Amino acid sequence: MNSLKCVATLVKELSRLPGIGEKTAQRLAFHILKLPKVEAESLARSIVDVKEKVKICSRCFNITEEDPCQICRDSNRNEKQICVVEEPHDLLAIEKTGIFKGKYHVLQGSLSPLDGRGPDDIRVRELLDRLKGNNVDEVIIATNPNNDGEATAHYLTKVTKSLGVKVTKIAQGIPMGGDLEYADHVTIGKAIEGRREI
Amino acid sequence: MNSLKCVATLVKELSRLPGIGEKTAQRLAFHILKLPKVEAESLARSIVDVKEKVKICSRCFNITEEDPCQICRDSNRNEKQICVVEEPHDLLAIEKTGIFKGKYHVLQGSLSPLDGRGPDDIRVRELLDRLKGNNVDEVIIATNPNNDGEATAHYLTKVTKSLGVKVTKIAQGIPMGGDLEYADHVTIGKAIEGRREI
Repeated sequence: MNSLKCVATLVKELSRLPGIGEKTAQRLAFHILKLPKVEAESLARSIVDVKEKVKICSRCFNITEEDPCQICRDSNRNEKQICVVEEPHDLLAIEKTGIFKGKYHVLQGSLSPLDGRGPDDIRVRELLDRLKGNNVDEVIIATNPNNDGEATAHYLTKVTKSLGVKVTKIAQGIPMGGDLEYADHVTIGKAIEGRREI
Repeated sequence: MNSLKCVATLVKELSRLPGIGEKTAQRLAFHILKLPKVEAESLARSIVDVKEKVKICSRCFNITEEDPCQICRDSNRNEKQICVVEEPHDLLAIEKTGIFKGKYHVLQGSLSPLDGRGPDDIRVRELLDRLKGNNVDEVIIATNPNNDGEATAHYLTKVTKSLGVKVTKIAQGIPMGGDLEYADHVTIGKAIEGRREI
């Protein structure tokens, strides 16, 4: 099989993707080999397309095809609430709920004392500029519930409060469909702390 | 996120690949978005490349960039032994062992009474033509140890034996590094049937 350099190249390229090991990459490569040529070309084109078309919104730093992005341009959405997330896929997850009708700010990462990522490495300054410029009532922090996300939330709370803006954080607790028996003790603790009167 | 059609297209294309669900496809798409443009382009190019460069060997039906393939052209390999496999990746798995020094025949599938795939749907006729034309001493059947593979092996044994060619089948038994305790009873049964004097 030494002669099939192009297959080896494809396997190598695919195995660079996250969660794709060499075995999976090989299976995918052989699948692509069996695809009709038009389908393989359309897969390849869609990869090039996202790199060519997708930009970063200069206001909220979400990914977008037009600047500013659709959400920033949408005058039906509440300018006075800004939900802060780490990455575009977090924004997407919140948008899928259909519950939040404000604007967003995508940090493009999180603080990480261990990896040496500080406030200058993510879009914190740009968030503060937005808060200074506009009449924002509430900043909703929706960073991930892990060490880096919590560190980021903690830092953001400090700097936004100093501007006199109300800061909230999305609730942590037992997930819907979850089972108390199988939830970890930190989650159960957070759920008890965050209990609400009914 | 409605505006990002190109991302949705990429997610759709990726989720068509085997073993890639929508969530994984989305994770891959966001990873590709973050890749440097040259890396995304080189992934895309490698997909198009395999479709453009890879042909089927007219002799053994393995995938190849040149016809006949490297293995068929290799005069150091034993023409008198033909190992019959279902797919090119099966051939690759055997080549990796470095043990087999004969030639191959890739059926490009297996018989499947349930899915209605008969001998005319795979490269059986071409195998028989090779056996008639050459002085082949031994046909080694290396189809997969599942229902379709076993049905294929059974059929091949019948038709090749009728040509007076010796037919063998690769051994089934406990895999190396496997554990008797966790092996299924069919495998253990095959291992006992296939026992050899030491």
